Amino acid sequence: MMASPEHKSADPRRIIISVDAMGGDAGPAAVVAGIALSAHKNPDIGFLLHGPEDMLRPMVMRKRGLLDRVEFCDAPHVVTMQDKPSHVMRNGKATSMWSTLEAVREGKATVAVSCGNTGALMALSVIRLRKLPGINRPAIAILWPSRNVQGFNVMLDVGADIRADAQDLLQYALMGASYARNGMDLPRPRVGLLNVGTEEHKGRPELKEAYELIGSFATKANFDFVGFVEGGDIPGSVCDVIVTDGFTGNVALKTGEGTASLIGDLLREAFQYTPLSRLASLLALTSLKRLKKRIDPRRVNGGVFLGLNGTVVKSHGGADATGISAAVKLAFQLAQSGFSKKLAARVASAAALAQDVTDTPAVGKQPGQQEQES
Amino acid sequence: MMASPEHKSADPRRIIISVDAMGGDAGPAAVVAGIALSAHKNPDIGFLLHGPEDMLRPMVMRKRGLLDRVEFCDAPHVVTMQDKPSHVMRNGKATSMWSTLEAVREGKATVAVSCGNTGALMALSVIRLRKLPGINRPAIAILWPSRNVQGFNVMLDVGADIRADAQDLLQYALMGASYARNGMDLPRPRVGLLNVGTEEHKGRPELKEAYELIGSFATKANFDFVGFVEGGDIPGSVCDVIVTDGFTGNVALKTGEGTASLIGDLLREAFQYTPLSRLASLLALTSLKRLKKRIDPRRVNGGVFLGLNGTVVKSHGGADATGISAAVKLAFQLAQSGFSKKLAARVASAAALAQDVTDTPAVGKQPGQQEQES
Repeated sequence: MMASPEHKSADPRRIIISVDAMGGDAGPAAVVAGIALSAHKNPDIGFLLHGPEDMLRPMVMRKRGLLDRVEFCDAPHVVTMQDKPSHVMRNGKATSMWSTLEAVREGKATVAVSCGNTGALMALSVIRLRKLPGINRPAIAILWPSRNVQGFNVMLDVGADIRADAQDLLQYALMGASYARNGMDLPRPRVGLLNVGTEEHKGRPELKEAYELIGSFATKANFDFVGFVEGGDIPGSVCDVIVTDGFTGNVALKTGEGTASLIGDLLREAFQYTPLSRLASLLALTSLKRLKKRIDPRRVNGGVFLGLNGTVVKSHGGADATGISAAVKLAFQLAQSGFSKKLAARVASAAALAQDVTDTPAVGKQPGQQEQES
Repeated sequence: MMASPEHKSADPRRIIISVDAMGGDAGPAAVVAGIALSAHKNPDIGFLLHGPEDMLRPMVMRKRGLLDRVEFCDAPHVVTMQDKPSHVMRNGKATSMWSTLEAVREGKATVAVSCGNTGALMALSVIRLRKLPGINRPAIAILWPSRNVQGFNVMLDVGADIRADAQDLLQYALMGASYARNGMDLPRPRVGLLNVGTEEHKGRPELKEAYELIGSFATKANFDFVGFVEGGDIPGSVCDVIVTDGFTGNVALKTGEGTASLIGDLLREAFQYTPLSRLASLLALTSLKRLKKRIDPRRVNGGVFLGLNGTVVKSHGGADATGISAAVKLAFQLAQSGFSKKLAARVASAAALAQDVTDTPAVGKQPGQQEQES
């Protein structure tokens, strides 16, 4: 394969990611540093970079080799962390966030990355990219450090919506399984439904209904349904995908993060307590660093918005270059695997199957659609 | 004050705790060892010990000085972890659990301790002790390691019920504040309502309603209402009491426990990785032990059932002697402070005030009832 003589839309294998340079706590410099890291590691990646071009161009030029990989999309305005989603939806046309999503809408990229205001990003994503046919509520999926071989589990929804009925939970299961397959290389993910006990009779009515629904779709959608799981299984090893409503998922996520952060601080204190323990911390430095890396949220930086025409990776607002680069890596993997299209096909197929189940007792009438490994 | 010549109902200052010797994973020996620890540390404590007397008496006799502090309540049957609550409610009369609660019902003790089957214990507690007038749903409150000076926060409900409306959440706030005041010596606890964001407009409708209700009761009920809090605040320092429904609370509790346990295991692995790190772990042993003690669940062993005529401390099923002793210590402190009566008065007062608010726009008509520091 020949390299193209022009350096822009260059290599045909190149995967383009749409990146919002603005709106993160660390400013555009961190975003540029992050994409530079990714560009350096991965020759097959290219960027559409959204924000004020006069500000971004010099930053990009200072990173060796980066200019060849970036196309600027000038957008003078910025969505701040304080902006209300409703305000951004009405007045956000000239913002970098809007422009970032627009590139996905127009098919210039299939995955977008932003570390801006989550509420505004979700609201804009829904009105600009629109929900996939068959999806009622989009979801935010995150990766959680776990005892599983892959090191992480997928949990969704962690806050796109505060409600979810049984149908929504089924869609989360389908989307979460598809995400685990394409983002984590798990051919047949195990899906669990979060509840307060693992007995079938327990929990809210919508959970019992979802239990039946998800179970009946597992084989067709190529995942294993392990049934109800509990909070302790989120960092556990009984399943790879944890399905829950956005209220519960958000509380669980923040509780886990808060608990981990408290333990980290207490650990640091413990090692500062005596001269002997300070010495010990020096001796254990490499091991402790390894542990830190294992559970470092920056390594799995990126909530993913699922259920839209296109995929949006939401990086932490406070992400540094390492964090941005991790989000870009995830975006690249999803784009390369054709995740957005596969997910759309999977959801459409499920909707058709559900229709089928409703229409006639016979199931599995669309074998063609089931071939897709989405 | 004279000591009584008989050694049973002896010292009038003695506080009697009703203890279920059976149903824990570690068997009655752990329970007897636990109460022996407590008896040794605290001369003002006495026990009603429920279970097969012929099995328990020799165990108690082997612990020096314990026999004088124990009155046996013979109960031949045991509630196992597998027993369904409905079965125990119908057929549990001869069990040690039933007998333990009966002693509280009859006023022989104000606080009961059991490490048996949670579902059965809750079901039996509700039918035997009955709900306090004005309480719709009883709650289970637990202590959570936190950044606060007292080292722990109270969270409720963590699983007595999977639902809670605004009135229930108000009652949880009142009960949680009362528990923090009497169980943790916080004269004016700060109460937070768990949500997915701290803005007033966020969250489910019942949360917005509860926000108003709890806020309007704060001054009268002698606590500070800090408004909405998030999952990260459960181990944090912005409040002392976290109010939520039993579904969310149970998931949060188990997620936090699971995350802490994962980090603990990874830490142990990290310290085993190289000879240098093994040496480091030896040097840091004291500091690590201090940390472990700080977040050891056994030190705060005991979910407390609130909202009943009497208080029930539910110890972990897997509790060892240290865990049982911690649960007994908590039970003692609650009994000594007259917690059960104070809580009942507080709830009655709140119900009267609410009635008052409903009847006329003027509030605070029962000043006499507000004097109680419950």
